[in-house]
Amino acid sequence: MNDSILDTINGIKDLKALDEKQLPALCDELRAFLVENVSRTGGHLASSLGAVELIVAMHYVFDSPEDKLIFDVGHQSYVHKILTGRKDAFSTLRQENGISGFPKSSESEHDVFNTGHASTSISAALGMARAMRLKGDKHMAVALVGDGAMTGGLSFEALNDAGQDKLPLLIILNDNQMSISKNVGGLKNSLTSMRTNRNYNAFKRWLAGILETSSFGQYLSRHMEHFKNRAKRFLAPNLPFEEFGILYLGPIDGHDVRKIVKYLRRCRELNKPMILHAITTKGKGYPFAVENPEKFHGIAPFEIMTGKVNSERQKTCSEIFGETMLRLAKENDKLIAITAAMPSGTGLTEFAKAYPDRFFDVGIAEAHAVTMAAGLARGGMRPVVAVYSSFLQRAFDSVLHDVCLQNLPVVMAVDRAGLVGADGETHQGVYDPAFLSAMPNLAVYSPSSQSELSAMLEMAVSRKEPAVVRYPRGSLPDIPIKTKLYFGEWEIVEPLRETVIVAHGTLLPLARWIAKKNGTGLVNARFLQPMDEEIINFFRENNTRLLVMEENTVSLGEKIALAANPCRLRSVAIPTEAIPQASVIRQRERYGFTEEHVTKILKELMEEA
Amino acid sequence: MNDSILDTINGIKDLKALDEKQLPALCDELRAFLVENVSRTGGHLASSLGAVELIVAMHYVFDSPEDKLIFDVGHQSYVHKILTGRKDAFSTLRQENGISGFPKSSESEHDVFNTGHASTSISAALGMARAMRLKGDKHMAVALVGDGAMTGGLSFEALNDAGQDKLPLLIILNDNQMSISKNVGGLKNSLTSMRTNRNYNAFKRWLAGILETSSFGQYLSRHMEHFKNRAKRFLAPNLPFEEFGILYLGPIDGHDVRKIVKYLRRCRELNKPMILHAITTKGKGYPFAVENPEKFHGIAPFEIMTGKVNSERQKTCSEIFGETMLRLAKENDKLIAITAAMPSGTGLTEFAKAYPDRFFDVGIAEAHAVTMAAGLARGGMRPVVAVYSSFLQRAFDSVLHDVCLQNLPVVMAVDRAGLVGADGETHQGVYDPAFLSAMPNLAVYSPSSQSELSAMLEMAVSRKEPAVVRYPRGSLPDIPIKTKLYFGEWEIVEPLRETVIVAHGTLLPLARWIAKKNGTGLVNARFLQPMDEEIINFFRENNTRLLVMEENTVSLGEKIALAANPCRLRSVAIPTEAIPQASVIRQRERYGFTEEHVTKILKELMEEA
Repeated sequence: MNDSILDTINGIKDLKALDEKQLPALCDELRAFLVENVSRTGGHLASSLGAVELIVAMHYVFDSPEDKLIFDVGHQSYVHKILTGRKDAFSTLRQENGISGFPKSSESEHDVFNTGHASTSISAALGMARAMRLKGDKHMAVALVGDGAMTGGLSFEALNDAGQDKLPLLIILNDNQMSISKNVGGLKNSLTSMRTNRNYNAFKRWLAGILETSSFGQYLSRHMEHFKNRAKRFLAPNLPFEEFGILYLGPIDGHDVRKIVKYLRRCRELNKPMILHAITTKGKGYPFAVENPEKFHGIAPFEIMTGKVNSERQKTCSEIFGETMLRLAKENDKLIAITAAMPSGTGLTEFAKAYPDRFFDVGIAEAHAVTMAAGLARGGMRPVVAVYSSFLQRAFDSVLHDVCLQNLPVVMAVDRAGLVGADGETHQGVYDPAFLSAMPNLAVYSPSSQSELSAMLEMAVSRKEPAVVRYPRGSLPDIPIKTKLYFGEWEIVEPLRETVIVAHGTLLPLARWIAKKNGTGLVNARFLQPMDEEIINFFRENNTRLLVMEENTVSLGEKIALAANPCRLRSVAIPTEAIPQASVIRQRERYGFTEEHVTKILKELMEEA
Repeated sequence: MNDSILDTINGIKDLKALDEKQLPALCDELRAFLVENVSRTGGHLASSLGAVELIVAMHYVFDSPEDKLIFDVGHQSYVHKILTGRKDAFSTLRQENGISGFPKSSESEHDVFNTGHASTSISAALGMARAMRLKGDKHMAVALVGDGAMTGGLSFEALNDAGQDKLPLLIILNDNQMSISKNVGGLKNSLTSMRTNRNYNAFKRWLAGILETSSFGQYLSRHMEHFKNRAKRFLAPNLPFEEFGILYLGPIDGHDVRKIVKYLRRCRELNKPMILHAITTKGKGYPFAVENPEKFHGIAPFEIMTGKVNSERQKTCSEIFGETMLRLAKENDKLIAITAAMPSGTGLTEFAKAYPDRFFDVGIAEAHAVTMAAGLARGGMRPVVAVYSSFLQRAFDSVLHDVCLQNLPVVMAVDRAGLVGADGETHQGVYDPAFLSAMPNLAVYSPSSQSELSAMLEMAVSRKEPAVVRYPRGSLPDIPIKTKLYFGEWEIVEPLRETVIVAHGTLLPLARWIAKKNGTGLVNARFLQPMDEEIINFFRENNTRLLVMEENTVSLGEKIALAANPCRLRSVAIPTEAIPQASVIRQRERYGFTEEHVTKILKELMEEA
């Protein structure tokens, strides 16, 4: 089209040059651009569709990068990327060497803080606001945060701290009543009552008029803070933010871009922490996404006209997990499932329907999920917390302090363990074996097939110690277990010889292929903790040459290197570096999980003097 | 005394048999008992003195262990221990094989959930309440939590979740306006306004009278929820808890035991989540503790009549840290100090006075402290977060996701690293080397002397990568650095020979003694990350025999075992188990850090074929 506004926007200067009246049309064009592009690349569509007007208005009013715009989680940052010079690169979204699905400071000066996990933006914005104050810089730090991310304890810690400081800090609350799934908890109810808050706004306008214009009002304003607060409370619904000393503004329609611009201009003049509450619709403008925001939260490439995802696929590990939980719950009325705002992503949708009393969605609150599970376990229940590996990081101390030190039978079903592909740095599930290795009493299971996953979950909930069962994003081979599962015992897949490959989980098929071709032994290290002492003793006594493969930062490799010392040992593992986005297959290549590379290392090991 | 009430109390049955009128006298006796005993053993006195009436009333009204009483942090659980059959064992408090300073389920059926770190009690109580509901058990879960612990995000996550559930869950808020130091943040201000909440209580009584007794009132009560809420808000100060759907009761005088009993009886009849707000004085009843609650938070044995601690001592690492920070701040106006509610414990009291603009106490909120520091670093500042090793666990994902993945120059000054003695299981600083080892870009410094600590901190804040400088509770030797500090380089203390001991931090003096006696080499592994490649290459090329000593769960030992493979290597480290209380010296003996044990291992290594 000749009269496309978006075509003229190659940076925020172009945006700022627009007449305010053109903004609604630009927002429509941005929506069409998003749907078209994400239908081809896949990505986080629904969040971005819901935040188009908010982000357009933010860039229209504020001066990025001098004003610091921070995007919580970052799913909703697509429009920000399009407006800040990355429109043409947008077709490379989430692909290797392409632009990231999250803000990345390496990508643009406008991405001032990298995000990925929920609830970090207010802390980060407060830090940046404090840095600016110390430098005498009067610009503003602005955090765009969803109501889902507000349920994370980190958001609360930041609000509590921000409330004690007089700083130009603006929190824009993007309230769509969703996390990835429907949002939960007391805060949601409180926000809901704010949504209908009409009287209060009318009253505030009236009061502001009086207080600011008449001299009697100015007298009042000086002396009647007390009255004002009380009157506010009489008229206002719940205002938890003001409890923290943070000015509350709103609610406003988060799809009325000109109104948002007006409010942001006003916020810009205030030198205090404040929250602007905007009501939005997740998926706005694309009916399939509005109807099914959970499906369109993060989506594979899809057909625009039908909303259908193109690919056919195997059962995922999340589905196997969900099915096994359903089966076990039937036999064991103590079994409980817990999720931190991800019933669908973790495969628990059916469980939640079948056993509503034994299902808990605690909000984006992983630490609480685990500590609450510890309470359930102490009360005689058998809780299973389903959580992604990278989000289990949020609950580190709950696992250590509340579960492991007390030796309570809590099972953590850790999904998305290993390389995860397009989500990139922040979502890689490659750190858990290392950080779990210091935990007392903890068993760590690593299944290499669907049947092993199922059997391991069953074993874990039948035993008495804390356990982690970790499995990858996507699927595992649909093959039967060959060797029965015994706690703490590894599986000898190919007989132990002079040289043995040790692998587990997703890498077992590759390891089997290489072991067979090269005539080495192969051990399936089903249990990362406890390790199989008997096999390790065999290694040490026979001075076995060992090649250890693991799709995570080195953990098993160095543990065996110590336990089987002084056996010759080579490790193929992921280095401790930020792992950029690419397909999982390309990421595996990058870190040497290929026949060629592993065979080369194996040959060196076998031929060493 | 013949008429001592406490003498007659050998369990909670005896307490329940008392006439209510006897309770105030019992509380006085308990205070005297506490002061007398803790003056001899040392311990957490001020918290316990402040909670005497609350705990007496809790046990008087509720039936432990059927009702579940959970003590947040656990410092205030001493009276609970005395009342539940551990009065005679109280002289063994915090000593090896004695009773713990925290609730321990291994010690008594009345200790239903182990605590130690802040903010876990509401999550745990909610889990236990849910378990009881599932079992059809009508008893109540009761969490006693301080206002300090309420600033932790985990408390908020739990409140948000509890608010969506109709359960008999009572949260007793022990509000003394202190964490270990003075409490901070927006929530504190909100609580302060509740403290003066007289009108509201009078109004509630009046309204309850009308609504419950008259038929017009019953009509109103059915139809005028809306009016009631508004009227409440007009009269009430801030009520953030009710925003979450949690009934707020109070505030009441937390030292009026009979009034507390009355309120608890009422709470017991309600089947919903509720919070009872009690105002207390930390240290109540012992003037020195009231005047100086921070000193008497955790205290060594002291003289009752003067409040003076008996021991004279060397400068602590915390003091060296604080002094170094003061010196560096003078030279570098970008240097910032951050604490999570522990300005004194971490040695920052002087810094806070000298540089109030560059000092931030964020409340008990370690995750926020680190993520906010990341924001400061992005804004060009040089933040140093001072935190105990065991509490850094709370910030695991903030360190990984916000600092290390973004490679931001945040320094974490990790105090209480290594064995900590009397605080026991939950406070051991022995896990950080293992869990930090997976972190990209992170440098980890381990000083072995005061001068090394100071030099390392200076180096860390002058460089560009994320860093941890970890140092022990208590002191390090006051000796000058022999070899200048170079980043990533280990120090060769005794020349490299056929056998070499590798040690760091607190273990260096023992290692030096043994190395000299046995004629081995000695390396001071000053940097746990990155390791010294050159020295490791030397080991590998010379097939050196290695003994690695570390006062933490194995980390360096297995890393060297892999990196220097196939050198013969022995590790002396702490197993991954819960480490019970004892003096640090006894704990070191337990884990084999003695001349005798290390020498034995060394001899085996040297004599191996």
